Amino acid sequence: MKALCYEGPRAIRYSDFPEPAIRDERDIIVRVEQAGICGSDLHIYNGQGFSPDTGFCVGHEAVGEVVAVGRGVYRRKVGEKVMISAAVGCGECVPCLGGHVTRCETGRVGCYGLSHQLEGCQAEFVRVPAGDFNATTLPDGLSLDQALMLTDNLATAYYGCRNAEISSAKTVAVVGLGPIGLMAVEAAFVLGASRVFAIDLVPERRAIAASLGAHALDPATAPAEIEEATHGRMIDSVVEAAGADATVALSISLAGAGGTVSVVGVNQTRDFHFNMAAAFMKNLTFRIGTCSVQCHWPELVPLVREGRLHPERMISHRLPLAEGEQAYRIFAGRQDGALKMVLTV
Amino acid sequence: MKALCYEGPRAIRYSDFPEPAIRDERDIIVRVEQAGICGSDLHIYNGQGFSPDTGFCVGHEAVGEVVAVGRGVYRRKVGEKVMISAAVGCGECVPCLGGHVTRCETGRVGCYGLSHQLEGCQAEFVRVPAGDFNATTLPDGLSLDQALMLTDNLATAYYGCRNAEISSAKTVAVVGLGPIGLMAVEAAFVLGASRVFAIDLVPERRAIAASLGAHALDPATAPAEIEEATHGRMIDSVVEAAGADATVALSISLAGAGGTVSVVGVNQTRDFHFNMAAAFMKNLTFRIGTCSVQCHWPELVPLVREGRLHPERMISHRLPLAEGEQAYRIFAGRQDGALKMVLTV
Amino acid sequence: MKALCYEGPRAIRYSDFPEPAIRDERDIIVRVEQAGICGSDLHIYNGQGFSPDTGFCVGHEAVGEVVAVGRGVYRRKVGEKVMISAAVGCGECVPCLGGHVTRCETGRVGCYGLSHQLEGCQAEFVRVPAGDFNATTLPDGLSLDQALMLTDNLATAYYGCRNAEISSAKTVAVVGLGPIGLMAVEAAFVLGASRVFAIDLVPERRAIAASLGAHALDPATAPAEIEEATHGRMIDSVVEAAGADATVALSISLAGAGGTVSVVGVNQTRDFHFNMAAAFMKNLTFRIGTCSVQCHWPELVPLVREGRLHPERMISHRLPLAEGEQAYRIFAGRQDGALKMVLTV
Amino acid sequence: MKALCYEGPRAIRYSDFPEPAIRDERDIIVRVEQAGICGSDLHIYNGQGFSPDTGFCVGHEAVGEVVAVGRGVYRRKVGEKVMISAAVGCGECVPCLGGHVTRCETGRVGCYGLSHQLEGCQAEFVRVPAGDFNATTLPDGLSLDQALMLTDNLATAYYGCRNAEISSAKTVAVVGLGPIGLMAVEAAFVLGASRVFAIDLVPERRAIAASLGAHALDPATAPAEIEEATHGRMIDSVVEAAGADATVALSISLAGAGGTVSVVGVNQTRDFHFNMAAAFMKNLTFRIGTCSVQCHWPELVPLVREGRLHPERMISHRLPLAEGEQAYRIFAGRQDGALKMVLTV
Repeated sequence: MKALCYEGPRAIRYSDFPEPAIRDERDIIVRVEQAGICGSDLHIYNGQGFSPDTGFCVGHEAVGEVVAVGRGVYRRKVGEKVMISAAVGCGECVPCLGGHVTRCETGRVGCYGLSHQLEGCQAEFVRVPAGDFNATTLPDGLSLDQALMLTDNLATAYYGCRNAEISSAKTVAVVGLGPIGLMAVEAAFVLGASRVFAIDLVPERRAIAASLGAHALDPATAPAEIEEATHGRMIDSVVEAAGADATVALSISLAGAGGTVSVVGVNQTRDFHFNMAAAFMKNLTFRIGTCSVQCHWPELVPLVREGRLHPERMISHRLPLAEGEQAYRIFAGRQDGALKMVLTV
Repeated sequence: MKALCYEGPRAIRYSDFPEPAIRDERDIIVRVEQAGICGSDLHIYNGQGFSPDTGFCVGHEAVGEVVAVGRGVYRRKVGEKVMISAAVGCGECVPCLGGHVTRCETGRVGCYGLSHQLEGCQAEFVRVPAGDFNATTLPDGLSLDQALMLTDNLATAYYGCRNAEISSAKTVAVVGLGPIGLMAVEAAFVLGASRVFAIDLVPERRAIAASLGAHALDPATAPAEIEEATHGRMIDSVVEAAGADATVALSISLAGAGGTVSVVGVNQTRDFHFNMAAAFMKNLTFRIGTCSVQCHWPELVPLVREGRLHPERMISHRLPLAEGEQAYRIFAGRQDGALKMVLTV
Repeated sequence: MKALCYEGPRAIRYSDFPEPAIRDERDIIVRVEQAGICGSDLHIYNGQGFSPDTGFCVGHEAVGEVVAVGRGVYRRKVGEKVMISAAVGCGECVPCLGGHVTRCETGRVGCYGLSHQLEGCQAEFVRVPAGDFNATTLPDGLSLDQALMLTDNLATAYYGCRNAEISSAKTVAVVGLGPIGLMAVEAAFVLGASRVFAIDLVPERRAIAASLGAHALDPATAPAEIEEATHGRMIDSVVEAAGADATVALSISLAGAGGTVSVVGVNQTRDFHFNMAAAFMKNLTFRIGTCSVQCHWPELVPLVREGRLHPERMISHRLPLAEGEQAYRIFAGRQDGALKMVLTV
Repeated sequence: MKALCYEGPRAIRYSDFPEPAIRDERDIIVRVEQAGICGSDLHIYNGQGFSPDTGFCVGHEAVGEVVAVGRGVYRRKVGEKVMISAAVGCGECVPCLGGHVTRCETGRVGCYGLSHQLEGCQAEFVRVPAGDFNATTLPDGLSLDQALMLTDNLATAYYGCRNAEISSAKTVAVVGLGPIGLMAVEAAFVLGASRVFAIDLVPERRAIAASLGAHALDPATAPAEIEEATHGRMIDSVVEAAGADATVALSISLAGAGGTVSVVGVNQTRDFHFNMAAAFMKNLTFRIGTCSVQCHWPELVPLVREGRLHPERMISHRLPLAEGEQAYRIFAGRQDGALKMVLTV
């Protein structure tokens, strides 16, 4: 089959790759119809990935059609359309059953497209372990585009808002306005935010946030403007969706007394300089982590279906898989207002 | 001064009444500028009030200007505009300080305009006990109309939604579309409802609910339509805002497995026939009670200020206090699309 | 095989019954080692069961050894000891996966031993549907006796406490001191209760409650004694574990302002006379329903293992299955201090 | 009057000091009967205090008798015994009324004995601002010793446990076994912990923790022992009660997947090296801050009264105020098993 494979920094190639097959009786094989490129794929593209491997298929966001199921698969059926969770769990341990796939106790936990351990889905076919748990039938009333956004980014945005303890009347800031940050703006309102400050360097992204009802700010002036707008109280709930040390530090500085900072941007710093004295003074709550995607679907599917969330609006580009190398270049360069890149297969 | 007084069934009169004075050093006296007529005032009007007294001033929703303060009042100042909470607590006991004014331990707890114990505010002046606690300075950015809605109805609607455990993605039904029910529709969306079914006999009220994004239904067909629309799952969170036995029973029947029914309509039945077997089968949660109005202001004020809630839209009529008798007649007869009646003083 | 079968009121017989076999590939067959008699089995014994069937096997509490597994079973293994959840769900739908087995959407939801639909476990063998979900390997560190108590009664007691919103410092009352009520006393302390009032007609049961740290009271004097002991505040959290109309009404009357009543006793009344006026005045929360047993195991297993809960102490009698008829007679007659009756197989 | 005053590093002197007087009409003056020395007082003693001032009275834990009240004081009465909250708020703003004194918006927020701004209570008399809010009548059934522990340490221990999200069945670690850490061990069980690991360098303190039911561990071996005991799952809820960088880092390392670390030890580091990559991998929640003491009294008073918490057992030494210098020396040197030092006045 054809797939996008990581060959080294800035080298993601459209290549031939062995077609996946059932290995475990709970596996399913999905013929990919659409795959997304995630901001975290750029870490790999830039040579700052999560493994020394090369030659593996990349990508962890996909929707498609089931073409084979293991004999231990009950719910997924050959021929049905499915959306695949970027978070992969065993579906059997207490954390998986309790909604915390990222705490899966089997060690099989993970994500597609980070190494050869679990090949990615920017490909014609992908193997999904524990297919009953890690994929679901395309929900009635959702478009393929909406479903694709549910495979990672919308769930991560929502999880970031939840971790930030956004609830009725809270004042919210979202730092970093890629697709996840922008969807966090929309989700913050669904969760009851009274107002949302949206912060990014890029004016076009700020304009989109403003169209969603946010007060859009440049990072340079955001602290002073928020201090004035909140009469010094600052922010209750900050969602960090960029992952840089500077944006994490900005997020902590924006939190007010009793505030919460939730980081969903990927930050791998081992000695982040944390201002504990300031955190102590303001009684800070700080959260960071990755999203158990499929566990949020029971809430997100009805919200999308009923039109309370519009994740499909984040899609800015749509290219065939064969032009995947160009898609990465556009995305990495933030060209043409690139937000969500979709690869059609 | 002039005031509306209850003289007997269907007899609320515009009369002379002694002007209130400071009795306790924590009292304040407010010159009323606007007073609302609440659905629960109709119980009194219809002779089904909460006391055998006659001749007392009615009304428990008011905004106005402080004209006198006791020597133990710190925050309220003569000359400032205030909104007054319909729920009256001592402001000193553990429940009051914990946000549960209706559980006030002093026995002084109550409401205006139910008897001579605490005269009502459909009057030129009203005495407010513990004025620092039971009234607050008109919040920046709120209109008088918005503030008036915050003195009872919006808070009750919001409390009803909270009691119904509305949260992100929940399916909601609101039974009874007076001002409280209609504001519950709007509040349900702020709290994250994926969809809201709004039920009332009156087509005009259903039309308003539909304009707020609800699926509006007639009570006769609501159960079957909801069963179909939810594929038999029925409702997660039901808000009852009418108070009749029939609407309470309808609300219980609409709840699905694990559902919650929250009654904010006034129901005084001593032997309500409760289908315990059905409740047992569906693992029901049932809540009923009255709202600690002022304890919801910290959340509601920013939501109104930022335009997430529009309680002022419920105002249908505005008459001078002198025409209060007519206002009650219009409201009791549900004439002219009567929703919220405001008396100007 | 041998089993206890319901033949009519007061007639549960030790009889020959066809041995169960795998019907669905997710089934397991368990050779029962110990089965419990639950208070709700007495409804059946007394001819007030949940179905018109006769001749079915009774019982829904069992531990034993797996002797056969369907080909779609992954976690349960032939030869291992298991405990079986009294609540039976598909284990695949959103409610089952979300911890709400009693809301299972497949209609297969249920319980053993209520009719021929799912034969009971007071028998030599029992068929367990969806054995990966509805049974679990005997946890390390737990005795068979402890595990047996986890198959229903302890989980129901804990669920009743949860539903009563017991948390740190709450004042609790438990009405009805059978095994579930007594375990609710112990669980209430684990959940942080500052004090627990335990109410039953039977002095021996009150004595056990007192030994667990409760204030034990007779129902006749309980309201007045609690009023005095709480200075009129009454109870925050009431757990009803008897199921009679009188005990449900008593429970409602004991709740204080803002209190919660949680009924786990089986009450099938269709027109329970509910004092809505009183409930309205005290802002009552009322909950009733049945327990999703297996969903509480992740919390209960460590609490039992670490010695914070001692459900095995409830076992008062231990008879062979062949003497099951006598066991029912002792239990129905509350003879010899009967609490938990265990049948050994 | 006589008081203990900070004169410089290692120089806290028993000195003459002007007796306090009512300054604001909401003030009360308390004749101190017992004052405690807090671990955080040692920061001041060691010259690492919170202000450049010298000559101020130290101490923020006291119980005593009201000897004067301002004319705006309603609840506190001359002659009654009171306990004083170490956290001082205005008692009027939204955060104070919502239970978050440490977020008081007036800027008057603070604590006694940190500078001349608010003189301390290791003295014969102390001025308490907003006496109705910042002090309370000695609760019925509590001893003076118990009340003294409620003025700071027990509340801080409980707050630390709450911040660590301890709930039913959680696995807990407490790092640092001074009085706060030891009371956190006891509080963790009240909040439902299934087991508690208690970690300190000092064997005597570990022995006390063990007597409370904890698994006591030396910091050097704790990580490995906890890994083994939890089968690699590590800790759900870590309470840090020491404040050193090393103990904070140890606490973070002990948290398992989805775990929470709550720091109540005083840590003033401005560039704490935080392992963000590890936190990201385990979906960490991190909280730090100070306690709104009086807001926890409604829960803590009944728990102490009913014998679920025994803070008075932490008192190891009792010296007259005149020997306060020696008390500080004993405490700073951790001599004679020093835990809680009480000064009698």
